[in-house]
Amino acid sequence: MTFKLEAVFRPSAVAVLGATASPDRVGFNLVDSLLNGGFEKVYPVHPSLSECAGVTCYPTLKSLPEPVDLVAIALNQYATVKVLEECKEAGARAVIVIAGGFREMGADGASLEQELVDHANRLGLLVVGPNTLGLLNNHHHFFLTFYPMHLPRGPVSFISQSGGTGLMLLNRAREAGLGISKWVGVGNRSILDFCDYLTYLRDDPDTGVIGIFIEGTERGRELVELAREVNKIKPVVFLKAGESAGAAASTLTHTGTMSGSPQVWRDVLHQCGLWLAKTPHEMVAVCQALVKSKVPAGKGVAVLTHTAGPGIILTEQLHARGCHLVELAGETIIKVQEVIGGVPAILRNPLDVAGLGFKAEVFGEAAEAMLQDPGVDLLVVIYCLHKNWRFPSLEIAALKKKYHKPIVAFYVSDLAGIAEEWDILAGAGIPLYTSPEETAAGVAALLSRSRAGGDENA
Amino acid sequence: MTFKLEAVFRPSAVAVLGATASPDRVGFNLVDSLLNGGFEKVYPVHPSLSECAGVTCYPTLKSLPEPVDLVAIALNQYATVKVLEECKEAGARAVIVIAGGFREMGADGASLEQELVDHANRLGLLVVGPNTLGLLNNHHHFFLTFYPMHLPRGPVSFISQSGGTGLMLLNRAREAGLGISKWVGVGNRSILDFCDYLTYLRDDPDTGVIGIFIEGTERGRELVELAREVNKIKPVVFLKAGESAGAAASTLTHTGTMSGSPQVWRDVLHQCGLWLAKTPHEMVAVCQALVKSKVPAGKGVAVLTHTAGPGIILTEQLHARGCHLVELAGETIIKVQEVIGGVPAILRNPLDVAGLGFKAEVFGEAAEAMLQDPGVDLLVVIYCLHKNWRFPSLEIAALKKKYHKPIVAFYVSDLAGIAEEWDILAGAGIPLYTSPEETAAGVAALLSRSRAGGDENA
Repeated sequence: MTFKLEAVFRPSAVAVLGATASPDRVGFNLVDSLLNGGFEKVYPVHPSLSECAGVTCYPTLKSLPEPVDLVAIALNQYATVKVLEECKEAGARAVIVIAGGFREMGADGASLEQELVDHANRLGLLVVGPNTLGLLNNHHHFFLTFYPMHLPRGPVSFISQSGGTGLMLLNRAREAGLGISKWVGVGNRSILDFCDYLTYLRDDPDTGVIGIFIEGTERGRELVELAREVNKIKPVVFLKAGESAGAAASTLTHTGTMSGSPQVWRDVLHQCGLWLAKTPHEMVAVCQALVKSKVPAGKGVAVLTHTAGPGIILTEQLHARGCHLVELAGETIIKVQEVIGGVPAILRNPLDVAGLGFKAEVFGEAAEAMLQDPGVDLLVVIYCLHKNWRFPSLEIAALKKKYHKPIVAFYVSDLAGIAEEWDILAGAGIPLYTSPEETAAGVAALLSRSRAGGDENA
Repeated sequence: MTFKLEAVFRPSAVAVLGATASPDRVGFNLVDSLLNGGFEKVYPVHPSLSECAGVTCYPTLKSLPEPVDLVAIALNQYATVKVLEECKEAGARAVIVIAGGFREMGADGASLEQELVDHANRLGLLVVGPNTLGLLNNHHHFFLTFYPMHLPRGPVSFISQSGGTGLMLLNRAREAGLGISKWVGVGNRSILDFCDYLTYLRDDPDTGVIGIFIEGTERGRELVELAREVNKIKPVVFLKAGESAGAAASTLTHTGTMSGSPQVWRDVLHQCGLWLAKTPHEMVAVCQALVKSKVPAGKGVAVLTHTAGPGIILTEQLHARGCHLVELAGETIIKVQEVIGGVPAILRNPLDVAGLGFKAEVFGEAAEAMLQDPGVDLLVVIYCLHKNWRFPSLEIAALKKKYHKPIVAFYVSDLAGIAEEWDILAGAGIPLYTSPEETAAGVAALLSRSRAGGDENA
């Protein structure tokens, strides 16, 4: 199955059935998305249209100039079922079915969906969807969704049971400077299911971390067991909807599955050492930590700040996640005192260097003293945006290289204020956040993967 | 006291003691902050320096060309105590004491702080701080902090017990397009305390919403009682630190106060109908809702989306905050069906118009049908950023004007993608968010102020 999914994620040529000239329509946007993303062999199909989004349209699949290994079907649910044989004849090994109107819409839809499955199985066609926004492979310039976009390239892949929630994750990832590898909206999962995509991403060299947004599945045990295995090789992070009764009713009609008891999901994922994110923002924050930083050797967290308040709020957020700050060695305190001189400062953990501690060089020296502390396995640095001062990114990046201990940065700033810091820190393997809750989630996720194991995802 | 605080928030001329030429130092940055903000009568004082940040320095307070009503003291804690008399002689009615090293640093510091208080009281001088980052009045071009900055102007004022946490609020507010009126770091509150600032802001015509970040106070009852009264006139939102034992130890050394039992604070604020935000981001989100939107007439919340997943996640977040979606009238469902035609769609609440519902015009018609529903008191609209489609901001803004029911927008997008939507929606009194948790907090805060009262801040 993994090998077969190459036709889904790395096709050589793609046809789009239901291409139109109207930017209002899904068919147009699938074609625009492919072109906008830089994919070259795009063949829109329409009975009479001569072009779509600037490229030549073909009247039928039969008339294409070359075989296509993937067909995106943007027809209605009834027409979709009838067109599979033609797809097969055009060379397709897989199809993407965008249309809704299948089992999520009741008994008639379920019967139509069964027809789709039977046809596809008979023809040996893989099916993504139905009822999906599509998928993308950022390393293959392949954006087959009806939301044309550009994304920073990177090692994070998402499997999403909801197109819209998947878009939330992508938008937040872009905003937070997190590079994306692959993304797929699983839709109704008639043939290809969570486990198929997860297996593919497990073996995908371009994927380093996998995020899964799930509303519900009747194959939960299988998924969790696989995820537990994959999680040993590369981190798997979950985001779960359907936590309340009202929402559960909506997920039933959304993708046609029961969402399952939220408490059961929480307990099972926790037992399996799988991270369950509370929000889409947290999902992205946790993926950022896991993809950028190495895992700490132990559970010792220290916090360095030049302004007390954010350190206090972060400490609370860490406590709430079961992460506790270590007591710093007496020697460490003495070193920091030497660095900052006699100014009033709070020399415990979180350690507030106050006074001249805002100077990047001084801040860096204090950070170095803390990294030398044998009890410190992971250091969080807090620094506030200032018009006339610079963030200590260069110092921190150099220390990361020198001491090989994970460092997480929490910069008090708007996103515009840290535009230049992302690259410096990302290059050094340092996750960067602008809120205490994201910082705490990132730190806790790293600790949860440290050798000692633990209770951070509480 | 309120009238006296005019010297603090709207001084006519300001002297800065401890001005220097070094951008590394607080004294320089106080002057730079004032000039950068557009304040005109700035008088740096330094024994020998001829200029600071481009303006003339004066050797002593006595040598200033005119009286100043406010002096910012950027000297160390010992020198600070000795200089109050000269401030008074220069015309000052208030001083801002930046230095730390007072009661937050133990018995010696406490005794020095008492000396400061005694001197100031004898001279009739108001004191902001000590141990403060300063304050600002955005409507008076008056930025007297050592973090020079620009902020969008607006009706939100913050009182913060931590400079750094206060900066978090300001940075997030700027990022989220929220306009700021006043901000003050209360520091050790030797003379001016929370209640003094809160009373001033209550009577301040430029302040519409007040956010208070508190670590701890020995005058909690007085503060909460005043906040309850002020909250009847304009919303007061709290953010509280010191929720965990470890953090409580840090707050003691930070501003020299015990933080109090977190559960007691939560219960008391809840009983008084005061909003307690969970994070700085939530604080800003709640302020945005309260400042932009009118309060709903009742508790009926409806959600309109063109993509199911974000609607489900938002619904969960609303449930978690005690907000429940109303059942839509049969007539409403029929109207929406007519608007969107026969495409598969989920016609309940949250209402997913799917299909052509992404078209701003169609989306607007569906929104109108929902606003006509007598059970709907507040409508949340969810829309996803798309390269070829536009957000329904114009439609939503027009509907707000027509139906006078509160609308809250949740756009699935990065911040860059909604740059043009802020103004349209803000002008119409519609809060705009990009995450479900902020949207839910904003909605819950509005409901908590509706005539029926309620349990949203759970």
